[in-house]
Amino acid sequence: MSSFTETDQLAINTIRVLAADATAHANSGHPGAPMGMAPVAHVLFNRFMNFNPKNPKWLNRDRFVLSNGHACMLQYALLHLYGYALTIDDLKAFRRIDSITPGHPEAHDTPGVEVTTGPLGQGISNAVGLAIAQAHTAAVFNKPGYDLVNNYTYCFLGDGCLMEGVSAEACSLAGHLQLGNLIAIWDDNRITIDGDTNQAFTEDVLKRYESYGWHIVTVLDGDHNLDLIADAIQKAKEVTDKPTLIQLKTTIGFGSKKQGTHDVHGSPLKADDIKQLKEKFGFNPEESFAVPQEVYDLCHKASAKGAAKEEEWNQLFAKYAEEFKAEHDDLIRRQKGELAEGWEKHLPVYTPADPAVASRKLSENVLNKIFEAVPELVGGSADLTGSNLTRWKGAIDFQPPATGLGTYAGRYFRFGVREHGMGAIMNGMAAYGTLIPYGGTFLNFVSYAAGAVRLSALSQVRAIWVATHDSIGLGEDGPTHQPIETLAHFRALPNCMVWRPADGNETSAAYYVALTSKHTPSILALSRQNLPQLEGSTIEKAIKGGYVLHEVEGADVTLISTGSEVCIAIDAVKELKEKHNIKARVVSMPCMEVFDAQPKDYRLSVLPDGIPSLSIEVMSTMGWEKYSHEQFGLNRFGASGAYLDVYKKFEFTPEGIAKRAIATIDFWKDVPNIRSPINRAFQQLI
Amino acid sequence: MSSFTETDQLAINTIRVLAADATAHANSGHPGAPMGMAPVAHVLFNRFMNFNPKNPKWLNRDRFVLSNGHACMLQYALLHLYGYALTIDDLKAFRRIDSITPGHPEAHDTPGVEVTTGPLGQGISNAVGLAIAQAHTAAVFNKPGYDLVNNYTYCFLGDGCLMEGVSAEACSLAGHLQLGNLIAIWDDNRITIDGDTNQAFTEDVLKRYESYGWHIVTVLDGDHNLDLIADAIQKAKEVTDKPTLIQLKTTIGFGSKKQGTHDVHGSPLKADDIKQLKEKFGFNPEESFAVPQEVYDLCHKASAKGAAKEEEWNQLFAKYAEEFKAEHDDLIRRQKGELAEGWEKHLPVYTPADPAVASRKLSENVLNKIFEAVPELVGGSADLTGSNLTRWKGAIDFQPPATGLGTYAGRYFRFGVREHGMGAIMNGMAAYGTLIPYGGTFLNFVSYAAGAVRLSALSQVRAIWVATHDSIGLGEDGPTHQPIETLAHFRALPNCMVWRPADGNETSAAYYVALTSKHTPSILALSRQNLPQLEGSTIEKAIKGGYVLHEVEGADVTLISTGSEVCIAIDAVKELKEKHNIKARVVSMPCMEVFDAQPKDYRLSVLPDGIPSLSIEVMSTMGWEKYSHEQFGLNRFGASGAYLDVYKKFEFTPEGIAKRAIATIDFWKDVPNIRSPINRAFQQLI
Repeated sequence: MSSFTETDQLAINTIRVLAADATAHANSGHPGAPMGMAPVAHVLFNRFMNFNPKNPKWLNRDRFVLSNGHACMLQYALLHLYGYALTIDDLKAFRRIDSITPGHPEAHDTPGVEVTTGPLGQGISNAVGLAIAQAHTAAVFNKPGYDLVNNYTYCFLGDGCLMEGVSAEACSLAGHLQLGNLIAIWDDNRITIDGDTNQAFTEDVLKRYESYGWHIVTVLDGDHNLDLIADAIQKAKEVTDKPTLIQLKTTIGFGSKKQGTHDVHGSPLKADDIKQLKEKFGFNPEESFAVPQEVYDLCHKASAKGAAKEEEWNQLFAKYAEEFKAEHDDLIRRQKGELAEGWEKHLPVYTPADPAVASRKLSENVLNKIFEAVPELVGGSADLTGSNLTRWKGAIDFQPPATGLGTYAGRYFRFGVREHGMGAIMNGMAAYGTLIPYGGTFLNFVSYAAGAVRLSALSQVRAIWVATHDSIGLGEDGPTHQPIETLAHFRALPNCMVWRPADGNETSAAYYVALTSKHTPSILALSRQNLPQLEGSTIEKAIKGGYVLHEVEGADVTLISTGSEVCIAIDAVKELKEKHNIKARVVSMPCMEVFDAQPKDYRLSVLPDGIPSLSIEVMSTMGWEKYSHEQFGLNRFGASGAYLDVYKKFEFTPEGIAKRAIATIDFWKDVPNIRSPINRAFQQLI
Repeated sequence: MSSFTETDQLAINTIRVLAADATAHANSGHPGAPMGMAPVAHVLFNRFMNFNPKNPKWLNRDRFVLSNGHACMLQYALLHLYGYALTIDDLKAFRRIDSITPGHPEAHDTPGVEVTTGPLGQGISNAVGLAIAQAHTAAVFNKPGYDLVNNYTYCFLGDGCLMEGVSAEACSLAGHLQLGNLIAIWDDNRITIDGDTNQAFTEDVLKRYESYGWHIVTVLDGDHNLDLIADAIQKAKEVTDKPTLIQLKTTIGFGSKKQGTHDVHGSPLKADDIKQLKEKFGFNPEESFAVPQEVYDLCHKASAKGAAKEEEWNQLFAKYAEEFKAEHDDLIRRQKGELAEGWEKHLPVYTPADPAVASRKLSENVLNKIFEAVPELVGGSADLTGSNLTRWKGAIDFQPPATGLGTYAGRYFRFGVREHGMGAIMNGMAAYGTLIPYGGTFLNFVSYAAGAVRLSALSQVRAIWVATHDSIGLGEDGPTHQPIETLAHFRALPNCMVWRPADGNETSAAYYVALTSKHTPSILALSRQNLPQLEGSTIEKAIKGGYVLHEVEGADVTLISTGSEVCIAIDAVKELKEKHNIKARVVSMPCMEVFDAQPKDYRLSVLPDGIPSLSIEVMSTMGWEKYSHEQFGLNRFGASGAYLDVYKKFEFTPEGIAKRAIATIDFWKDVPNIRSPINRAFQQLI
């Protein structure tokens, strides 16, 4: 006999009707997937998930990720029914400006939304990250008798998510990592926007996931048979050494006259269709956004159970505090996003007497110095460990213990050659709440992960890219690997810090700001080639994003530069002085976004009125007009050759800079009262 | 008895020694994969591939793609041995500046290199595109008795390529498309840069490819058994309704003292190691870059056979010309990259009396009008056909005939939700030489394909992105789908045209330039919302990239805008005139890259000295400082809501523009001789 009642069915139909009402009211949105997935959503939320809507941030809650984010009315309906801070009016404001119910789920806006989804393939990859974070946090903090962290991560996904390469990368790694705490439910409705999936997607998905090492379950009737759905989820929970994919056969837009067709995918139902839907499900066709009280009661009962579970957990955690004070306090601290007191004292400091070192190596130095003081810092590389230098000495790999290659308490990640998957996984890891993830690759290949980096920025997570080989200075690998457009790309992305440190102190500064910026991702662009430790650089100055590295009275020109070109600009100062009797000052600008946030008088002191300026950066000049009058860069692809030969070819030498500095001075000599580019006619909206 | 002799083995060892010599000479590069794959490379080039080194562009040649592009010394050695225009001195110049043997293979530089590879996963995806192009070209041009186009595409790839999501996308589609002409050979050496593949890559690759619908062959000894290798390739050729993956077990760096370890992956062998290698293989350890004459002879014999094949083919093609004159001439024309005479007369032309239409719809109009006149234009969408409007009326789908959904002669592609795969496939299709591919998705998701777009630009192929929903103007889908940084990103990419047309004539102009630019990819950013047909726009003006749309004598300010904001700028002119007695002129700038290529006096006529200018574009302002004195844009994420509400929120209204125009005039009023941003102190290197 089924353990489900008519009220369960009513709850399911309520979700369907709410989805139809909200999309019709918004005159936009996706009713089909919410209506098709309402049964599994109900079963999952009502019978399996542990959560407390009054405290959506409870550490040990089960995580729910809607990878097919266009189905968000499903999630909003659930959050409302279960008592999260999301009212019926919020549902009515679906897809309206400034609502907490936007067209796709946004984590930073809506209580109960764990990660920002919609761009397909991201959510399931975030879910892998959430599951990794759970496994690691459990391995570090659980103790005998204290199974503090044991939550599951559940993810809904559609055909689109399965077609995206990012999910392939993340799911292959999830299989390797044997993440038994991850349960993905595939809405197998055979419909995409273009129509039947047989037009483009005829692979054997289950076989593919088996090849990744996943456990597979199939539910042939996801529309009606709630017991089968519950059995499938239960079976998935019991397999603890493999992630599970549940194939759930559903009918898109179940209940609509057009159910099972792509007409219900991305457009609201017509009025007469909604009318028959409500009649069929026993709702009053004259009413909209109606929720039967017994449905609220059923859902709130589950929420109350979740709240009680949290209360139990709080008691356990209080007991844990007595026995494991340090761990307890550490876990509290991590959840606040704050770093351990005094951690920053471990950041390396350099003087000009220290040897020239590549900034990728300077980054490794930072990791070696701070890894103990910042235990929540975990990360790795997309198969470029020896090039990115992302692994501190003696690091233990995060690996399933069965492999013999590491443990789940390990903090170093072998992401494989999977940049996009790594980026999306980092977003999930950061969203879990106890970790700060970093990932290494060549700067040029951060672009492979652009979709994930964008969501780091939009969802305001602290993820750090260790992006080495940051310019044509990588030399022989050539133009296929030499970034030109990359910094411009990510500087144009809102809420993303792009750092390009010039030496050791600036590298320490980059880590300092990246690690202390709770709501902003960072990309650290680091050199392959050696860079001298500069006279005049300090961590304190560099954390302002831009500062005067070399001042001279009565300067004729300001040279502004970043990273590996700063030391060449310094040499150009000598060249200009000695050969041309020209006085140049030098500004180092390791991070434009941080510089922009400084008070205007500071910025004007760095880039003052009255003298012309020339920026020097060995890639696209795009964006530099905001800070400099003239720009020296590389608006073409690079070349394969020894680093110094490549720099010489493109005139990134003291002489090449001096030549352009002279041209700049000459071009601006007749302009009275030269205005710093810092001065603008109006403020930008932010 | 083996059909291979000692000379075959000598040829293989010659490749190995050349790879060791060249990487040692360059003091950089990857000897391991060339040494491991030398046997299969020899068998493939010597026994299977049809090619004529004297005419590397012969249409029906077999295509060879080195997806693991870091192994390029393998390819360079082959090209040299078989008599392509690549001398022993070119091998000595491996990875040197301005050589034709750069660190990764670049198609536009090196004869015999089909596509530019190195960024992992791209080559195999290009190979899918080459195979698609072959299937389509064959279906269109082959006739009974004229099997004109029947070449195979062979691709080498490594573990890294298999881990990348882009290859997963492309290979899933290749299986669906039943591309029997595609043969991929996986260098299964168990080693990546980080070490053993068991650290991150333990999936069952063969099972995965079976799940995609591929045919699978395994060669357990790829180091020695040439007959097994030949058998495997032969079997692969015989399976004509499935692509084949050959798993070839090899030893990385075969012959080195460190063979089978990641030490030989990315660093040259030490001198003593090279010495023992040469001794072991019977080479003089004192000599470098030595090629035994019998090896040249063996290779040149194969090349001569290829040349004879081409000669045979030329005769067949000459006979074809008699019977199928039109098709013959069409094929010749296509290979030159030239469009059919008069095609451009089909481009739609509009007057202000025509109704307001979304530019995605204007793009559909272009496709509907030109598809007959431009038969080499083929394309589709990443599962957004109804949104991108990429399908002309009555188009036939490119599908395996067995599916009943289309034919290989079909010109419309169902790419599935696979943006990155689509981009890389387009690069392969374009490289084949008979097609101009286009692909549709939302502008925001072109970023998923950034890795492929970059290679379109670097390898100079004509691929076109139909990128709709190009701004916050898409409305309700919200910030997850609203591009902010995307145009800046691709404008910063060298050799990539970014078009954002404002109306019908500009949309026709965008297609005109995109289709006639043989060596440059284009991104067409198109609106979801309706746009009026503008007074003053013409195709002739718009193909200059930027032009004066609205002129007024004694103007106080220039408003520069693109796409959907141009019509709002025009409304702002009225607002400024009527409410503030201010005279504004308007410049439409649909394509910066094309505008930049105009003579300076033209550019100065559009953006003259003497008056201040304000740019208006509803996304990142980055890059606009190059053209305007002040910038109105959106340097934050957008919002979910009805399109007009979103525009209003961010003040993209005639009033919002007028306010900023006034601020601009005010800010610049005391500056004498305002200089147009077109004037620069020095020229950029290009």
